[in-house]
Amino acid sequence: MDLHRLFDPGSIAVVGASATEGKLGYEAMRSVADFDGPVYPVNPNGEGDVFGEPFVSAIGDVEGDVDLALLCVPAPIVPQVVEECGAAGVGAAIVYAGGFAEAGEDGERLQDGLVSAATEHDVALLGPNTSGYFMPHRGLYTSFVSNPEVVGPGNLAVVAQSGGIAHSLAFQGVNEGWGFSGVVGLGNRAVVGFEPVIEYFDADPNTDAIVLHVEGTENARSLMETCRAVETPVLAYPVGEQDVDSFAASHTGALTGEYELYRAGFEQYGVPVLRGTTDLLDAGHVLANAPVPEGPNVGVVTAQAGPGIVIADKLQAHGVRLPALSADTQDAVSAYLAGTTYAENPVDTGRPMPGFSDLVVTVAGDPNVDAVLVYMVYEEAVGFPPTGIAAIPEETGKPVVFVTDGPDQFVADDLEELEASGVPSFQSPERGADAMGALVRYGALNAGDPAAWNDEEGDGNEEVGNGGGDSA
Amino acid sequence: MDLHRLFDPGSIAVVGASATEGKLGYEAMRSVADFDGPVYPVNPNGEGDVFGEPFVSAIGDVEGDVDLALLCVPAPIVPQVVEECGAAGVGAAIVYAGGFAEAGEDGERLQDGLVSAATEHDVALLGPNTSGYFMPHRGLYTSFVSNPEVVGPGNLAVVAQSGGIAHSLAFQGVNEGWGFSGVVGLGNRAVVGFEPVIEYFDADPNTDAIVLHVEGTENARSLMETCRAVETPVLAYPVGEQDVDSFAASHTGALTGEYELYRAGFEQYGVPVLRGTTDLLDAGHVLANAPVPEGPNVGVVTAQAGPGIVIADKLQAHGVRLPALSADTQDAVSAYLAGTTYAENPVDTGRPMPGFSDLVVTVAGDPNVDAVLVYMVYEEAVGFPPTGIAAIPEETGKPVVFVTDGPDQFVADDLEELEASGVPSFQSPERGADAMGALVRYGALNAGDPAAWNDEEGDGNEEVGNGGGDSA
Repeated sequence: MDLHRLFDPGSIAVVGASATEGKLGYEAMRSVADFDGPVYPVNPNGEGDVFGEPFVSAIGDVEGDVDLALLCVPAPIVPQVVEECGAAGVGAAIVYAGGFAEAGEDGERLQDGLVSAATEHDVALLGPNTSGYFMPHRGLYTSFVSNPEVVGPGNLAVVAQSGGIAHSLAFQGVNEGWGFSGVVGLGNRAVVGFEPVIEYFDADPNTDAIVLHVEGTENARSLMETCRAVETPVLAYPVGEQDVDSFAASHTGALTGEYELYRAGFEQYGVPVLRGTTDLLDAGHVLANAPVPEGPNVGVVTAQAGPGIVIADKLQAHGVRLPALSADTQDAVSAYLAGTTYAENPVDTGRPMPGFSDLVVTVAGDPNVDAVLVYMVYEEAVGFPPTGIAAIPEETGKPVVFVTDGPDQFVADDLEELEASGVPSFQSPERGADAMGALVRYGALNAGDPAAWNDEEGDGNEEVGNGGGDSA
Repeated sequence: MDLHRLFDPGSIAVVGASATEGKLGYEAMRSVADFDGPVYPVNPNGEGDVFGEPFVSAIGDVEGDVDLALLCVPAPIVPQVVEECGAAGVGAAIVYAGGFAEAGEDGERLQDGLVSAATEHDVALLGPNTSGYFMPHRGLYTSFVSNPEVVGPGNLAVVAQSGGIAHSLAFQGVNEGWGFSGVVGLGNRAVVGFEPVIEYFDADPNTDAIVLHVEGTENARSLMETCRAVETPVLAYPVGEQDVDSFAASHTGALTGEYELYRAGFEQYGVPVLRGTTDLLDAGHVLANAPVPEGPNVGVVTAQAGPGIVIADKLQAHGVRLPALSADTQDAVSAYLAGTTYAENPVDTGRPMPGFSDLVVTVAGDPNVDAVLVYMVYEEAVGFPPTGIAAIPEETGKPVVFVTDGPDQFVADDLEELEASGVPSFQSPERGADAMGALVRYGALNAGDPAAWNDEEGDGNEEVGNGGGDSA
């Protein structure tokens, strides 16, 4: 299914447009007021214009092609409106209304009617019961929360079964200073399901990783096969570890309740499983911005031991290995350190120090190390920020994740610079460790060279890639 | 052990004070430059003055009482300096240097000497191998990170075995807009261990909850008995679910590796166990600011289903119950809603609506409900923020936790107002749910009326209070 007219439209109609503030048809007009193509407000009762555009009384009366129709009409008339849109050559539609398959037998009949109309006319229909999408690179926000334009462009795509979760992920990203290539709420998936949206973002040059929020789908195998077939890394947060069936069914008509099947299935198809929205977002951010490691061996360099212990603890819950450093690296590390700190792995400098960046570069260069996690306390007098680590991903091809305790107001600019050079950064030790853990699990589940991921040390650590169900 | 001279000193000496920027003895002077009592820089080689205070050549030469000495001297001479401080009547000391029990036999001998000197003269000694503390209500920051003064006053006390974790928790709090009654890094706990610090904060009128970061202690029973004996709620994050023994031993000389014993022990003594720094901070924030519920029954009111499902899922992992609402409440809820949304528990309004606050007040008044968790999408046009919920804790005695998706830049002020009225607020659905889960677990573990916490519905949910090990 081609979704370009849905996600990259040249023209938009708002069916049920309204000049009354607060109404959905008004909010929809406001949301596309700055759209760079023609916008047509459609309403048989509309008089004059709204946001500078004259009302058209029916979709068939619009002069010009309409790629996308935003349907701001009540559920009972949606099938008829989709039919009219299809007949008028509209290529795609978003249905915001609820009251379909999630709402009992009458709703199911309505949804059947909507599907028939969309299928007959080949309308790529998002929803019903969705909040729309954000496409920040286009400046296009077809969702009616306040101030959606704060969600800026980036390289991570969000595909959420729930529009509410799509918004939550997007705004959590804003709070972290991260942007998105797209944020989509699927709703009931009556026509457009997970698969074509994943394929759309896989083909999108702006997208470097895709995160999924999954409440449940009728054909999990199809979803998982799509995840495996695409080249772009995919991560998933399947909801429903506990019993939330009856409430979930009332939501998007989906069934949860097979959590363990989803978890095992996703990982079998190369998709690391995350356990919450923040967890999912952090992991997606790292996958989108750091190279995938070629093995499970993480070198940890910390300027204070306590956070290093937390990080080592969490990393190992993901099946990550903390390998011994090579003799050369140990010598180099010992030369830096006074001897009272920990020259093995994790390397602990006790306090930050001016040569801290060089030390990290040394560890990153160790052939025993596939990835580096760095914790540095915020102490400007002794070398914060460690700008020297920014070149590591480019020069070695190894991922680096940086964690600091520094408060936003002082470190935000420094972290933004590190991020721009491909070093994802966090301000909570376990969030950084869990995101690195997801990156390593992705590598393990999709290893080109499985031998590199074997547990050569025989140290009894659980296999990499099986840590998803146990990680916090 | 009385810690008032340590944590609430009338005068401070900096032993090893320096006029050379970057040196520990300089940073220490800078950190207490604004202290509201006398500050004495002590250094036999010091000439002139530093930060306006004239050097004194020995601690015994200071004219006036010294409550607290900050020892910025190398490890080998620390025992001798403590002896001199004790002989001079100094009441408390902070030892920053490492190289003691965490660093092998020589270090152990040094630490023995330090303990002897401190014990003989009754010096309340924090450390060694600590980064000090923040006491924001006093404006006193004896730790040398940059800009510690951004850590403002509040009602949560942090007692961390690691100074690095103390800083991380403090600055994470700053990023959330939360303050602290005190933030203490214990280090090696050679003299002052967990117990007297917990007792200090229990007696502190500014402190409403205490969070602990625990790597391991020689006498876990003593620690747990102290937690049970104090009136202030205590929460703990014991590190070491995986194997981090050798690194941890090199850190503060403590042994981890008995995670399961710590977890079970803490919960047996009424202390909910958390699984990360952010998790600990969130739970502490809620315990410090919301009333403890009188039962495990949480009413969830959500303006969008997807986040509601995430919340219900996470809550149940803590053993929280989502009770059926009373017939009266169901009638009232149905009157508000159009019928296509979910009038049971969770109550789902589908979208925000102007009467949203009233709906939450209605659910909070339900006798079946002990606590309320609210999720509301950020949509100004339809009633955000829900200011009407602010009165619930005061009027009903029931805790309310609020979660929204709104971005910081637009909702920070609204959330601050809610927080000021006793409604802790979050911007990630699972963080809000996990914090509520910890609050309910605290109630279950410390129930005055255990009958209220029994699983009356026989619905097979695990017992409240045993969810800690499984919650994410």
